[in-house]
Amino acid sequence: MMPSRPQNLLELLKIDWPIIQAPMAGTSTPLMAAAVSNAGGLGSIGIGALTAAAAGDMISAVRARSNRALNVNLFCHHPAQSDLARQRAWLERLRPEFEKFGASPPAAIAEPYASFLENEDMLRTLLATKPSVVSFHFGLPRGEWIAALREAGIVLLATATHLHEARLIAAAGIHAVVAQGFEAGGHRGIFDPDGEDAQLGTMALTRLLVQELNIPVIAAGGIMDGAGIAAALRLGASAAQLGTAFVPTNESAADAGYRAALSSDAAHCTTMTRVISGRPARCLANRFTAFGASVSPDEVPEYPIAYDAGKALNAAAKAKGDFGYGAQWAGQGAPLARALPVEKLMSALIAELQTA
Amino acid sequence: MMPSRPQNLLELLKIDWPIIQAPMAGTSTPLMAAAVSNAGGLGSIGIGALTAAAAGDMISAVRARSNRALNVNLFCHHPAQSDLARQRAWLERLRPEFEKFGASPPAAIAEPYASFLENEDMLRTLLATKPSVVSFHFGLPRGEWIAALREAGIVLLATATHLHEARLIAAAGIHAVVAQGFEAGGHRGIFDPDGEDAQLGTMALTRLLVQELNIPVIAAGGIMDGAGIAAALRLGASAAQLGTAFVPTNESAADAGYRAALSSDAAHCTTMTRVISGRPARCLANRFTAFGASVSPDEVPEYPIAYDAGKALNAAAKAKGDFGYGAQWAGQGAPLARALPVEKLMSALIAELQTA
Repeated sequence: MMPSRPQNLLELLKIDWPIIQAPMAGTSTPLMAAAVSNAGGLGSIGIGALTAAAAGDMISAVRARSNRALNVNLFCHHPAQSDLARQRAWLERLRPEFEKFGASPPAAIAEPYASFLENEDMLRTLLATKPSVVSFHFGLPRGEWIAALREAGIVLLATATHLHEARLIAAAGIHAVVAQGFEAGGHRGIFDPDGEDAQLGTMALTRLLVQELNIPVIAAGGIMDGAGIAAALRLGASAAQLGTAFVPTNESAADAGYRAALSSDAAHCTTMTRVISGRPARCLANRFTAFGASVSPDEVPEYPIAYDAGKALNAAAKAKGDFGYGAQWAGQGAPLARALPVEKLMSALIAELQTA
Repeated sequence: MMPSRPQNLLELLKIDWPIIQAPMAGTSTPLMAAAVSNAGGLGSIGIGALTAAAAGDMISAVRARSNRALNVNLFCHHPAQSDLARQRAWLERLRPEFEKFGASPPAAIAEPYASFLENEDMLRTLLATKPSVVSFHFGLPRGEWIAALREAGIVLLATATHLHEARLIAAAGIHAVVAQGFEAGGHRGIFDPDGEDAQLGTMALTRLLVQELNIPVIAAGGIMDGAGIAAALRLGASAAQLGTAFVPTNESAADAGYRAALSSDAAHCTTMTRVISGRPARCLANRFTAFGASVSPDEVPEYPIAYDAGKALNAAAKAKGDFGYGAQWAGQGAPLARALPVEKLMSALIAELQTA
């Protein structure tokens, strides 16, 4: 381990503290990202589900509140292949769930957003707006795009769940790797969702990547407080990425049902499910994940086509006051989440880190 | 978190360093335990699969080499219920595997060893030999036995995989809890193997137990070196328990096939399986775990009845030079294991911990 590694990453990212707020598309907001960055951490927004125009607006909304570092996160999944028979069968499988709320499944579902891999408009927006950091989830874009972003002075991050993904990331010229442990909430960054998943925990994965790679490692998964951040640094990580810790903050877009579930006993049992979106993601145990327990992976349409149905089912349930079908992403540290304004949470994390 | 907690546990266990060698029945040896304890850690032996007489001999064998602390580990599973139909069906399911080695499955299988819960001879041996520490896996013995062991001056530890198990442990008067993360190799200590498993990683589980309990927490799972131990302490753990790190030591009972697998690429993908013993356990991916991937949990006889078949299959395979059916338990940190004498490994861990 190079002792100077942590300092290097903070300088590279232009942040004061080794604290990265996870992007969390749909839950993070410009207010959240700006507050994290203004407190000396790295604020992030997830723009993978937006059009290039909407992404540009969201970047501007952060910039109106902070001129510090900003991380913009993109989904690099293989573009979904439509499989009409599977999609129809899936909607029939979901029909009884819709009917619980006096609704019917949509007549058809389709990809609700494009992969960054085939969204050249988004690349142009990034090159034009130049956020200080761009991060990738589910894989990597082609080499020319990575080169173009690097040449624009943008620092690049990418998620790995295993050493073999981390080696691809380092070889592609990405500046630092996010070691996403199995504890982490939300979408698992695994490149091939149908391949073998070694389910490496944050402790094992972080230590292994620190030992094997020459780029900085950011630990993610199960980290909720300054003690957790300090532990990640002891493992040789250069920073920690926290998502669930920010879900119940005032600046979060989480709805009332999500916030209530997170502060309930449900926080003590999260589960990895693919029924909500089509890719494995860690969610608070709810009615949708319980339904998913009897579903075989090959029944579920490809990500993000399945998400089109999942969002429709959640909307039908919410319309009847049932929050049990939401994408209530949360990591295993969920019981330790604190409902605070971001500024107060950041102060607490920094104080805890300094005393740890 | 009480700042004095770490020191207290070391005093209670009468050890110099916050390093506990995991018991690992079948892999740990009196030589290993004595060497760990003589280096100032807590050496352990697993006697759960032994008779009381053999356990007494093993305790004596450690004592002949060390007069320091000793942890003796017992299995507190619900005594297995024989289900002859399921057992016969299981042996037929395994028949093609046996036939690959020109062998046949045994005519019948039975519990190869008793649970500590119904082994009063073992209790008497413990009270007579008084090892300094006794630890429990899979559950807890009845209250009178716990009281008798405490009154004999024995320090008690027990494994938890979730907060609800940890609360039972603390309420039962156990001195400290081993927080076994999902990363950990070998048998998962979950009390009810057929219940919901939240699969909590070491980082999330350790931090949660430290926050919620008033007894010391020992972190286990994915910890392979001094940096890992230091990280566990930062999480508020009072010590770290390492198993896989000791598997390739000179003093280990691991066979040549197990050692070779551990130092191969197989170390990068461990898997949780119940086909080998009847209970979920983390093993290096091998031919037996691959076979298990297509097995439904309710096909497998209860622990440890299934182990009777698993050991027979491994013996048949080994007789033909195939090591792919062994109980090659390993945690997710397996790629970081070092083949060293225990004394050298302990020196390395202590030096790394001091510099971390």
